[in-house]
Amino acid sequence: MDLADPTFDDVLAAQVRLRGRVHCTPVFHSETFDRLCGAEVHFKCENLQRVGAFKARGAMNAVQSLPEADAALGVVTHSSGNHGAALALAARERGIPADVVVPKGTARVKVDAIWRYGARLHECEPTLAARELLAHEIVTRTGGTLVHPFDDPRVIAGQATATLELMAAVPELGVLIAPVSGGGLLSGSALAGHGVNRDLRVVGAEPLQADDAARSLAAGRLIHDGNGSTIADGLRATLSPRTFRLLVAHQVEVVTVSEAEIVEAMRLIWDILKVVVEPSGAVAVAVLLQKKDVRWLGKRVGVVLSGGNVDLSALPW
Amino acid sequence: MDLADPTFDDVLAAQVRLRGRVHCTPVFHSETFDRLCGAEVHFKCENLQRVGAFKARGAMNAVQSLPEADAALGVVTHSSGNHGAALALAARERGIPADVVVPKGTARVKVDAIWRYGARLHECEPTLAARELLAHEIVTRTGGTLVHPFDDPRVIAGQATATLELMAAVPELGVLIAPVSGGGLLSGSALAGHGVNRDLRVVGAEPLQADDAARSLAAGRLIHDGNGSTIADGLRATLSPRTFRLLVAHQVEVVTVSEAEIVEAMRLIWDILKVVVEPSGAVAVAVLLQKKDVRWLGKRVGVVLSGGNVDLSALPW
Repeated sequence: MDLADPTFDDVLAAQVRLRGRVHCTPVFHSETFDRLCGAEVHFKCENLQRVGAFKARGAMNAVQSLPEADAALGVVTHSSGNHGAALALAARERGIPADVVVPKGTARVKVDAIWRYGARLHECEPTLAARELLAHEIVTRTGGTLVHPFDDPRVIAGQATATLELMAAVPELGVLIAPVSGGGLLSGSALAGHGVNRDLRVVGAEPLQADDAARSLAAGRLIHDGNGSTIADGLRATLSPRTFRLLVAHQVEVVTVSEAEIVEAMRLIWDILKVVVEPSGAVAVAVLLQKKDVRWLGKRVGVVLSGGNVDLSALPW
Repeated sequence: MDLADPTFDDVLAAQVRLRGRVHCTPVFHSETFDRLCGAEVHFKCENLQRVGAFKARGAMNAVQSLPEADAALGVVTHSSGNHGAALALAARERGIPADVVVPKGTARVKVDAIWRYGARLHECEPTLAARELLAHEIVTRTGGTLVHPFDDPRVIAGQATATLELMAAVPELGVLIAPVSGGGLLSGSALAGHGVNRDLRVVGAEPLQADDAARSLAAGRLIHDGNGSTIADGLRATLSPRTFRLLVAHQVEVVTVSEAEIVEAMRLIWDILKVVVEPSGAVAVAVLLQKKDVRWLGKRVGVVLSGGNVDLSALPW
């Protein structure tokens, strides 16, 4: 990927492009949660976004950005999760083909979602190398455009629009917390947040068992080894050089949480806010529930509930 | 209860009184649900209301309607469910005492909710007679005002405000479907709906296993026997003379659904809309999913998702 890093102007352009194509999702506030967290917490409900996740923003922005001639050849990605479904939807709405590479063993419910939106599915071995190779082969064959799940400035600018909406809805936000996996949402959040308010503190929330972002930022260099498995299945990817660079430039901090803390946060969100959030989407709330960090105690905090796609037959409690 | 039946003016007054005290809940729309139902369906999310149910509206309206001298003596009710919690909240916000009679054997999670809002709890045998007797005793002792869960014009006018909001958000609604138990929500919905649009078709949704409203309307007289148990635990009450009279006056129709249809609807709401709805809240959607009734096929339909209080440890799938 050799496109330039996204700018705040790209985020503003994405917001215009996305109007009427994705939901301006509601922002919830709960006195009960304020008490539990010791902060004034505002929840940006991207679990109520189209396809059930913020990924609709980035995919839609990327697809809508394509020149007509490129678009006609279709789009390609490798993603077993929400990005695959989001790209399929975006392509269908533009009337172009989408090819999605899915690793063997991906949960049926996820594959079904991608298929339902009309994408062509391609199965591969469950390794990153196999995924990238097959996606590359498809691009070579079709001439389609690869839309990476996070290492793409159009995708990052699209994800960033959630933060623009949140900051418009909640004035004088002091802290913004979003989950981090590949870093598309988090770097976009920082870009949008600092475009509106230079003093906003931007925090990434990461499972301790997939803490490459925390370790990379601590070490000052990308570290890709050692991500284990986590219940937050949307957060198993690792930063790219681009997203790492953006997080460093925006002085983003990352806080880790345990598996038990993720499940507890997820359940509290369901119980109190009455919305369905997937484990990955609860990670930012798990950070707040640790309730021990003076960086946000007593502050006005925004959190991104990033997605709501979860298998209701296999809940972690 | 000898108060006059509520009028549309009472509903408008309730709307003013409730401003800033209850949420104007969001209305959701989903293309996926439209396809499943064969109609254009708009969901009024009262599961996202304060205390997790529309009951906050009626209780708040009743408590805020009381003259100062009456209010000072407190409010009393018998309700094991959402109305008990709603009345406790409303009383706390006005700074007056609330006494709530709860039958033995009520689920711990419900009792906790009532207690958390600061009500005094009184346990009784699990019969309607025992509940009413104990509530009456408390009223005699304290001089407090009984606020019945549904047989009260202030409560009915309060519940009706959900429909006012829905019809303001979705113009030209052809059909409105709401669950029916004691009939407070349904009669209020008819009152508000016909105040806005005389031609609105108003439909009650009722579990087949607690179908006293359907049988009463068919027979043209109140029938109170034979309500069995249903998973929709909020819908086990029966109509009062007042709510029956209002339903007849507004030509409300009632449609019944099976237990399996309720569970299926509940799960689809969680899966597609990403909101937590209790079985009682899913009953109106179960009616639509039957997808066989020309009265709403192809129409613009509003449904009230009435509540979201459910024990996450005991889901029916």
